[in-house]
Amino acid sequence: MTDQLRRPRVGHIQFLNCLPIYWGLMRSASLLDVDLHRDTPDQLNSALVAGDLDIGPISLVEYLRHADELLLLPDIAVGSDGPVLSVNLVSTRSPAELDGRPVALGSTSRTGVLLAQLLLADRYGAEPEYFRTPPDLSQMLRKADGAVLIGDPALRALYEAPKAGLTVTDLAQEWKDWTGLPMVFAVWAVRKDFAAAHPGQVKDVYEAFRRSKELCLAELDEVAEATSRWEPFDAATLAGYFRALDFSLGDRQISGLREFARRAAARGDVPALPVGGPEFVSF
Amino acid sequence: MTDQLRRPRVGHIQFLNCLPIYWGLMRSASLLDVDLHRDTPDQLNSALVAGDLDIGPISLVEYLRHADELLLLPDIAVGSDGPVLSVNLVSTRSPAELDGRPVALGSTSRTGVLLAQLLLADRYGAEPEYFRTPPDLSQMLRKADGAVLIGDPALRALYEAPKAGLTVTDLAQEWKDWTGLPMVFAVWAVRKDFAAAHPGQVKDVYEAFRRSKELCLAELDEVAEATSRWEPFDAATLAGYFRALDFSLGDRQISGLREFARRAAARGDVPALPVGGPEFVSF
Repeated sequence: MTDQLRRPRVGHIQFLNCLPIYWGLMRSASLLDVDLHRDTPDQLNSALVAGDLDIGPISLVEYLRHADELLLLPDIAVGSDGPVLSVNLVSTRSPAELDGRPVALGSTSRTGVLLAQLLLADRYGAEPEYFRTPPDLSQMLRKADGAVLIGDPALRALYEAPKAGLTVTDLAQEWKDWTGLPMVFAVWAVRKDFAAAHPGQVKDVYEAFRRSKELCLAELDEVAEATSRWEPFDAATLAGYFRALDFSLGDRQISGLREFARRAAARGDVPALPVGGPEFVSF
Repeated sequence: MTDQLRRPRVGHIQFLNCLPIYWGLMRSASLLDVDLHRDTPDQLNSALVAGDLDIGPISLVEYLRHADELLLLPDIAVGSDGPVLSVNLVSTRSPAELDGRPVALGSTSRTGVLLAQLLLADRYGAEPEYFRTPPDLSQMLRKADGAVLIGDPALRALYEAPKAGLTVTDLAQEWKDWTGLPMVFAVWAVRKDFAAAHPGQVKDVYEAFRRSKELCLAELDEVAEATSRWEPFDAATLAGYFRALDFSLGDRQISGLREFARRAAARGDVPALPVGGPEFVSF
């Protein structure tokens, strides 16, 4: 097979938050036209930056660190405009009272963890002692007064922690209350070199994701029903979760992205977004 | 997530001959219910034998070598009842004249290569000097009088070799002429330990493959059209290829499988199939 015929190497996050997109890719038969690599967000971040993938989701923080090599696909992201349900601070005291206290980070999710640190520092004036640990809530709270949980363990904690008298803070809702803007956790990016060499393929992949998003939004209850079979959540819980997610990247989401970039850069956590950024692929 | 909720790990051959099955899995949304590992036949053979996969396709020869650990899924296989188009001996002389001559094996496909050796030895009384080499036909025939090609290079050779005055022998058609039976190249198997522990999951995966087969047979022209975009063959050629393939495993195919096992065991290439074998999973 010649190089020209190589299918674009596209990343896909194998977690619940991207499952609706996968559903849509299947249902539109778009999987035939991509070489899909399903992996953890961390692995996909690294692969896209290393050039082992051409197109794929990347956490906002990693995108900001490599914005000069990447272009964003329009209209697709993973975020929320209000509660996201799956990015939570669970604590024995209020966020403001965590200053100087131990807080366990139960995830390698770069954007979620940075969001927690940024909110605690800048909104609540709290600088806890952070340490990393596996995402086991009761273990975490044996050694800490707060626990940052992301993904499935966060979703579980949302339903279980209040019964144990713990405070659950939805960090995307906090962000919205603070800034008035949606939170964007991951974006879809294409490597600049690939976009220059294969503009037609990038457009096709973009169209596939766009169709996929439309399909999955139209069939969310069906996705939830099919997924509940394999997840420790019932169909109604999953449908509520999928509906909390915001897969769009419109003007408000871009403002949220810029605001996060500005605040994270001010803390020295990421380089500043170039003026006029983020840079999108043009078709 | 508990172990009980783990999706079954299912193998899928990422070559053209299994693409219709993948299409069917997509179209029936069955991919949501499996942890699909797409890989080369060799890697999938090893993974299933090693217990890194629960269910998947396995070359007939590898199945025969590990029949005591595996159960077959009913009604699904990859083979042909006549020409298969993609398992070819290309030679400068007739098969019988290859005795003592160099023959290049351009594939690691275990069943295809053994079929070539078995036909040459037992049907034509020819024992060539075999050597392995990359599947480049003109390179192969610089050093050999015959070349065994499997998969895409074999399909290409089928259309190009006759123009160069070479003889193309379709090894599945030869098998049919010789034995009157279909040839089976790969079967779908489940590990006995997994089948005992998760009978319900095995049934569901089996049903998914059955639905997939029905769907892909009903939509073969569409599969061929969609696939031609990425392959060095046009839609009509691909449709012809997909129609040459036999995805069934009925009484005649099982007789073909037993006949191959008997002849291969007589040569000492595989252990004998146990009496009454192959052993199927029962639902």
